[in-house]
Amino acid sequence: MAADASGKGLLLKGDPIADTFRDEVKTSLAQCLRTPTLIGILGTPAAPSKFYAEFTQRQCEELGVRFVLKMVGSAESAERADGEGVEEAIIEANEDVNVDGIMVYYPIYGGQQDHYLQQIVSPLKDVEGLHSKFHYNLYHNIRFIEPKSLMSSIPSSTAHIPVKVDIPPPGTVKSILPCTPLGVVKCLEYIGVYNKILTYGDRAYGKTVTVINRSEVVGRPLAALLANDGARVFSVDIDSIQEYTKRPRTAPEATRKYLPHHVAHPSNLSLQECLEISDVVISAVPSAQYKVRTGWLKEGCIAVNIAADKNFEKDVRDKASIYIPAVGKVTILMLLRNLCVFPRHCQ
Amino acid sequence: MAADASGKGLLLKGDPIADTFRDEVKTSLAQCLRTPTLIGILGTPAAPSKFYAEFTQRQCEELGVRFVLKMVGSAESAERADGEGVEEAIIEANEDVNVDGIMVYYPIYGGQQDHYLQQIVSPLKDVEGLHSKFHYNLYHNIRFIEPKSLMSSIPSSTAHIPVKVDIPPPGTVKSILPCTPLGVVKCLEYIGVYNKILTYGDRAYGKTVTVINRSEVVGRPLAALLANDGARVFSVDIDSIQEYTKRPRTAPEATRKYLPHHVAHPSNLSLQECLEISDVVISAVPSAQYKVRTGWLKEGCIAVNIAADKNFEKDVRDKASIYIPAVGKVTILMLLRNLCVFPRHCQ
Repeated sequence: MAADASGKGLLLKGDPIADTFRDEVKTSLAQCLRTPTLIGILGTPAAPSKFYAEFTQRQCEELGVRFVLKMVGSAESAERADGEGVEEAIIEANEDVNVDGIMVYYPIYGGQQDHYLQQIVSPLKDVEGLHSKFHYNLYHNIRFIEPKSLMSSIPSSTAHIPVKVDIPPPGTVKSILPCTPLGVVKCLEYIGVYNKILTYGDRAYGKTVTVINRSEVVGRPLAALLANDGARVFSVDIDSIQEYTKRPRTAPEATRKYLPHHVAHPSNLSLQECLEISDVVISAVPSAQYKVRTGWLKEGCIAVNIAADKNFEKDVRDKASIYIPAVGKVTILMLLRNLCVFPRHCQ
Repeated sequence: MAADASGKGLLLKGDPIADTFRDEVKTSLAQCLRTPTLIGILGTPAAPSKFYAEFTQRQCEELGVRFVLKMVGSAESAERADGEGVEEAIIEANEDVNVDGIMVYYPIYGGQQDHYLQQIVSPLKDVEGLHSKFHYNLYHNIRFIEPKSLMSSIPSSTAHIPVKVDIPPPGTVKSILPCTPLGVVKCLEYIGVYNKILTYGDRAYGKTVTVINRSEVVGRPLAALLANDGARVFSVDIDSIQEYTKRPRTAPEATRKYLPHHVAHPSNLSLQECLEISDVVISAVPSAQYKVRTGWLKEGCIAVNIAADKNFEKDVRDKASIYIPAVGKVTILMLLRNLCVFPRHCQ
């Protein structure tokens, strides 16, 4: 069974989804006292990073954001090393009152040294949501924050306050969510995986999702976000499969205070078994070789590729009812929306 | 040529070096208003972690520190997953006014997820010095800090103030240095690689050091620390060799403000060429298979193993004048010394 007469599921590109946010972002920007400035820091000559920087530039121009590309290290000159000057450029941008957002094009060193750089960006300018404070808030389902809480290096515990509406209480703003995981959620909202009839905060309840990759930047926050919203999530990594579910509200109050909002425990299922029962399969494996087997997918499922390489086989739409090949266009709008969260240039 | 009649260099275990700090730590502890408490968080049943926890316990008992071992996840019960409950245990310890220091036995998940946990520990209780704030201070040679600066999530730039003495100015304390790199420096001071005749802050000047491994936890901070102190350092990783040197004081003031204290640039030398000119070779490769070739070492060099496995060949002392097979005993004293840095329980 397939979605249309050609026997293929629907191929859904990011554009129509991104378009639904374009007006919202434009409206926010129109309320600003001055044009916000985003600085992009490019520290290598890698083609995907350069491409993404050019893409950011075009999106900024279209939406009226000032974009300044700072090329350092080997991006600036072949004689310089990868990443040389990135840390300095970040610190300078942190301190520049005219800079509202900072975007760094990763990978630079890869691994731990990139993670170090992500912690150096001021959380108040971290439009990508890569600072560990934002991951902490996500894992603990802390959705609304006082901006000053971002100034503290010490995470605070919080009781599990059920979030019923999407409107920040007075004196608070939304905590920044990492842009790629958020972009995926926005895609799933658009295609109805998130059910608006359900209570806000539980709208993925009843859905089974497999997320392939458990990196700290994409896979793990995405799995947690979906579980926080009620989904049953299989988080698949190279050496293990875990099941993430929303924490039951039965834990004693005193204990709950310190607990992440979701429960992660090892799963006995194989990848094939997970895929066979998944309504949604999201893959983010940074390898051109890796492919999710179409034969293992559930008939009519939704397939979302968020890797730079294509993680699904060419015939994915023989099984999937909807296939989203990339979410970058949605991600970038989430990022530009974050330029307006902290009231520097806004009224 | 060898160091003694047996034709072998000196085998130097950590004990005599650790002993030189034992009195200092005991004196600091004696000045405390109450017995400080260190909490150890064990999240896996891995033998090296359990061994290290028992070792911490013995050292604490000997020095009069209260040690509480908290076993969570698979360390507590075979039915629980690795790392389950570690994050909660950290947050609880952050908030417990009776806890002065927090030590987590890594690896738990390995990689990025461990790095996330390291950012969750309050910097005021991070006796291991693994929070990115301490790495930032190290890279920028910020040696003395106001304790309140640790409360801020935003790194501050600093001019390169030459550090001439080892005494914190009024109102400041020493920034915590990551314990393993600091332990290595203490070993090198003990055996005279650091020359006390030279100015403080330049005592490794004239020495060439190879550091094998460039992880964010050990290898990179160690290379930076040695370069900050004047050494010429080759930082060797699986796919590249970099040379770290102290930044010349000739950079314009306005630029210098944002720069790390050392310069890292790619080296054209091979590992063999680095080893042939190195006075000190430090290896931290987490693999039982990896061995530094004795044949490549400079006659009379100093060899320091900081990996859990032995990274030097059995005949290392045929070439090395001094071989230090492990620094763990020094490291643990550095860690216990850090219990007294922030004035909670101390006068």
